[in-house]
Amino acid sequence: MELIILPVIRSDKNPLIIPSDVKPSRKELKVDGAFNAGVTCFNNEILMILRVSESVSTSLTNIIDVPIMEESDGQFQFTVKSINRLTNDKYNFSDPRGIIDKVTGKAVYLTSISHLRLARSNDGTTFKVDETPLLFPSDGTESWGIEDPRITKIGDTYYINYTSVSENGASVSLAETSDFVSVKRRGMIFLPENKDVTIFPAKIGGKYVCFARPVPSGIGQPNMYIAKSDDLIHWGEYEYFIGVTTDGWENGRLGGGAVPFLTDRGWIEIYHAADKSGRYCLGALLLDKDDPSHILARTVRPLLEPETDYELNGFFGNVVFTCGVICIDGIVSIYYGAADEMMALATISLDELFALMNR
Amino acid sequence: MELIILPVIRSDKNPLIIPSDVKPSRKELKVDGAFNAGVTCFNNEILMILRVSESVSTSLTNIIDVPIMEESDGQFQFTVKSINRLTNDKYNFSDPRGIIDKVTGKAVYLTSISHLRLARSNDGTTFKVDETPLLFPSDGTESWGIEDPRITKIGDTYYINYTSVSENGASVSLAETSDFVSVKRRGMIFLPENKDVTIFPAKIGGKYVCFARPVPSGIGQPNMYIAKSDDLIHWGEYEYFIGVTTDGWENGRLGGGAVPFLTDRGWIEIYHAADKSGRYCLGALLLDKDDPSHILARTVRPLLEPETDYELNGFFGNVVFTCGVICIDGIVSIYYGAADEMMALATISLDELFALMNR
Repeated sequence: MELIILPVIRSDKNPLIIPSDVKPSRKELKVDGAFNAGVTCFNNEILMILRVSESVSTSLTNIIDVPIMEESDGQFQFTVKSINRLTNDKYNFSDPRGIIDKVTGKAVYLTSISHLRLARSNDGTTFKVDETPLLFPSDGTESWGIEDPRITKIGDTYYINYTSVSENGASVSLAETSDFVSVKRRGMIFLPENKDVTIFPAKIGGKYVCFARPVPSGIGQPNMYIAKSDDLIHWGEYEYFIGVTTDGWENGRLGGGAVPFLTDRGWIEIYHAADKSGRYCLGALLLDKDDPSHILARTVRPLLEPETDYELNGFFGNVVFTCGVICIDGIVSIYYGAADEMMALATISLDELFALMNR
Repeated sequence: MELIILPVIRSDKNPLIIPSDVKPSRKELKVDGAFNAGVTCFNNEILMILRVSESVSTSLTNIIDVPIMEESDGQFQFTVKSINRLTNDKYNFSDPRGIIDKVTGKAVYLTSISHLRLARSNDGTTFKVDETPLLFPSDGTESWGIEDPRITKIGDTYYINYTSVSENGASVSLAETSDFVSVKRRGMIFLPENKDVTIFPAKIGGKYVCFARPVPSGIGQPNMYIAKSDDLIHWGEYEYFIGVTTDGWENGRLGGGAVPFLTDRGWIEIYHAADKSGRYCLGALLLDKDDPSHILARTVRPLLEPETDYELNGFFGNVVFTCGVICIDGIVSIYYGAADEMMALATISLDELFALMNR
């Protein structure tokens, strides 16, 4: 077998951000992860919107303290619910990420809750993390947390789409800001179950375009679709885009990764795929400038796969996952979450990336 | 316990339509079901658009002949795929409705394929079924069939939304017609998994409104949402509406049923719900005229539940399921599929229906 050295270079500053760099949002919480950040350039800085996951530090090993937003007098308030493993035989406690109902097989609680937090950098590798959240879960669609933000700049507005999780499922919500201080929520834009929406930063053929990744319960797999919109709020014109394969590194699930960016050869989308064992890698697609449903070239092998200690070992190991890249002067900086715990950076030149596709 | 006789009256002509009333769409197929019809009034007739399900008559008991649309030279053609039970150990053949992959637990084929067929009546009980389909599966999103149509008249246009089924899941598609002869497809309007979309027949607060019923794979249940649109093609502004209960007749799944209709007290929606055993009943909701997310009253017990032979026994027994009602002169005619095989009718006066709600 031919040995190929992939020309993606990991930053020697990796991991760029680890949980201990982040101040907990509340005194009763500890930070488990600072990962899967959306990125953008703003006011001569590189901004990350981190997904910060937090859990309750519990001293009693038989008690699981669930952090959750609960409605009280019409307002959603942060609450800790204590579940005793020993006296609860309805639930399965074997997954550290959630408490599972034995009958339905569905999560009834998550053991952590995520919010969105800003981090700022002048050089793209040294980041200062804000002390307080940019966006904290605030309504019934977000009561289990908000996750995996993507930032799409259109005109002077930065649109932030993210996964909203509640007992009713994982849906996709939209927010917008022009200053990263005040953020306006625009509500749910994709019904559950959907994640990994990536909105193109310009209209194509007169329409806004995005990738969406629904997960059907019965027939069907976690596949990617293209959607179109006139206003970023109402989406339709759905078309199947790419799907899981029968074998290999993409045979479990795949979905949008980074917000696509335009080159002189077409759009580039860095997406993620996982195999059935849950090992997450990144791949790249080159898409027609005027019709992004048309794939001009793609990486056959993973562009980036879990190899280093910080990718292999962490809160949920064997994962690299991107929500945003920055392309400046022909260099693509891929910011990615490692092991659902940290942020890292890998770079590749556009020329090398083009050369890698369809090899 | 108080004994209540529900004042819904079944037609003495029931079942109105049975499979043998329907000519197969192709000589190699037999009709298994003519059910779950959308209904409307058109040119002084009552029209049904039936879901007609067909399968291949197989003489060899170890062969399952799967009717399916397959792509060939860019066109989707009807094909029969023969699967031998004896030589195929990857699949589970115990469910008569589909062939299940033993590893994924997902259907790899259905044993029948559905299309949409018109039936016409002058009196609302005697129907003449067209000899040929109104709409037959025709593309990759419909390759396993099209099911459960709803007809919404807006202006002079009749919008038909239906479930499109393929190996990629059950999604919702829209078509439109003004004459029930030529039908124009408008494409997928809800990503998989989604069914039971019911579009209100008028704009409310300047927007088109519908119910949608996604089925998330991971967290969450088959619950109903409200969605809004400016153009019936792009949908958003999603809001959770009603969900499955922990106990009782609604503890499995629920979803939109008939297209809602307006009364002087508000919108009435006849919806369906099933318990965990798969027993499907109908319920009724009275919704605020200007804000249909606001429930003014509802039936606590089922409005209609499987009781008669044709509801209890059939292709899939213990099911009553509506896609459309007609309300004329204070009488609500609920057309409903019985046992996934036949069409039936039950009527109730508006006054009785109002009286039943919240009792």
